[in-house]
Amino acid sequence: MKQKKLITISRQYGSGGREIGSKLAKRLQIAFYDKELIEMAAEKSGIDKELFSANEESAGGEIRYLGNMMNFLGNGTGSMLNLSLKDQMYITQCNLIEQLAEQESVVFVGRCADVVLQNHPGCINIFIHSNLENRKKRVIEEYGIDEKQALETIEKIDRKRKNYYEYYTDKKWGRAQNFHIVLDSSRFEIDKLVDMLVFLINSEE
Amino acid sequence: MKQKKLITISRQYGSGGREIGSKLAKRLQIAFYDKELIEMAAEKSGIDKELFSANEESAGGEIRYLGNMMNFLGNGTGSMLNLSLKDQMYITQCNLIEQLAEQESVVFVGRCADVVLQNHPGCINIFIHSNLENRKKRVIEEYGIDEKQALETIEKIDRKRKNYYEYYTDKKWGRAQNFHIVLDSSRFEIDKLVDMLVFLINSEE
Repeated sequence: MKQKKLITISRQYGSGGREIGSKLAKRLQIAFYDKELIEMAAEKSGIDKELFSANEESAGGEIRYLGNMMNFLGNGTGSMLNLSLKDQMYITQCNLIEQLAEQESVVFVGRCADVVLQNHPGCINIFIHSNLENRKKRVIEEYGIDEKQALETIEKIDRKRKNYYEYYTDKKWGRAQNFHIVLDSSRFEIDKLVDMLVFLINSEE
Repeated sequence: MKQKKLITISRQYGSGGREIGSKLAKRLQIAFYDKELIEMAAEKSGIDKELFSANEESAGGEIRYLGNMMNFLGNGTGSMLNLSLKDQMYITQCNLIEQLAEQESVVFVGRCADVVLQNHPGCINIFIHSNLENRKKRVIEEYGIDEKQALETIEKIDRKRKNYYEYYTDKKWGRAQNFHIVLDSSRFEIDKLVDMLVFLINSEE
C-alpha cells in the first residue's frame, strides 16, 4: 500500500500558493481543500455559512455566536458555547482537517493546517511567497481587484493571515524553519515548481 | 551559450547545507566556494590567513588590522585602513564573490553571498535548515564534535551566523522571504534534495 500523502500549503496573498496546491493535488491525484473547508466546517458546526465565510482565517476576537453548537457535543470537543465565533470556527476546522487527514491523501491550503497536522510525521509543509510586483499582477489580473486597491488588499490580507497564524499557533509567520519546503513563485514558473514538487514527493515512494 | 548559474546557499550549522552545495556544484559541473573563499580573500587582502580563518563569518568588532592594505588600492575599494579587521575581511570577500560571479557559474556557501549578489537577476538563493536532532547527529558523526559540546556548538555558531548576516545586511536571518528555495534536510534525504534542485535548475535552460 502506498504511503498516505499529507501536504499543507501556507502562502502569501497573491503568491499563487492556491494554484500550486490545486495543480499539485491534481498531479498526485489526491484530494484538495481550500475554501471547501469553510463550507464543510460551517455545515458541521451549524454556524451560518456566510458568517463563517466572512470570518475566514481571522483571529480570535470577541464576537460570540450562540447558534446551534449542539453539533460539537458528540465529537469530543465538548460544548463551545463559551468560545468566540472565530475560535469555534478555528476548532471546527482543526477537527475537520484532522478527520480528512485520517481518511485520505490530501493537500490543504491555509488554515494553519501545518500546525494542526504537526504530529503526523509524513506531512510535508510548504510555504509559497513571491515578490510584490508579481503578487500585484496576480491579484489584479486573476482575482479582479482594482489596481488602486491591490497593494492595500495584499497588505491587509497578509496581516490577517499572519495574525491568524500567530494567534492560534506558537510559531512566527513566514519563518523558514517552520516549513519543509519554501518556494518563491516569482523566481520560477509555477508549472516548473509543481513538476519539481511532484518529482520530490514521488521520489519518497 | 548556456546561461550562467549563480547559486548561494545559506545554512544552519549542522544542516548539511555545505554537502548539498558541494554535491549540487558537482552535478551541475560548476565551481564551488565555501572555505576556499577565505584562503583566496586572505591572499588578496594581505591579511594573515590564520587570522582571517579565525574570524570567519564573524560580525564587525573593533579589532583593527594594520597589515598590508596596499593590495586594496588597486582594485577600486580604496584604502581600508580605517576599518576593523572583520569589516576588511567582509569587504574583501564581497569583492571576491562579485568577481567570481562575473567569471563563471558557481555555488557559494555562506558569507552573505545571497545579499552580495542580490542584483544578479539569475541568482538562486537557497536556505538549508534541519531539526536539532539531525544537526546534533551530523556535528558529532561528521564534524567530530564531542557529544556534550554538540548543542552548545550548534547554538553558538548559529548565533554567530545570524549576527554576521544581520550586521552586514538589512535582512533578518532565517526569514522565508529572503530565499527562492528553503529546504529542510531532515525531512528528505540529501541526495533527493540535490536531485530535485538539479531537476529545477536544469529546467530553466
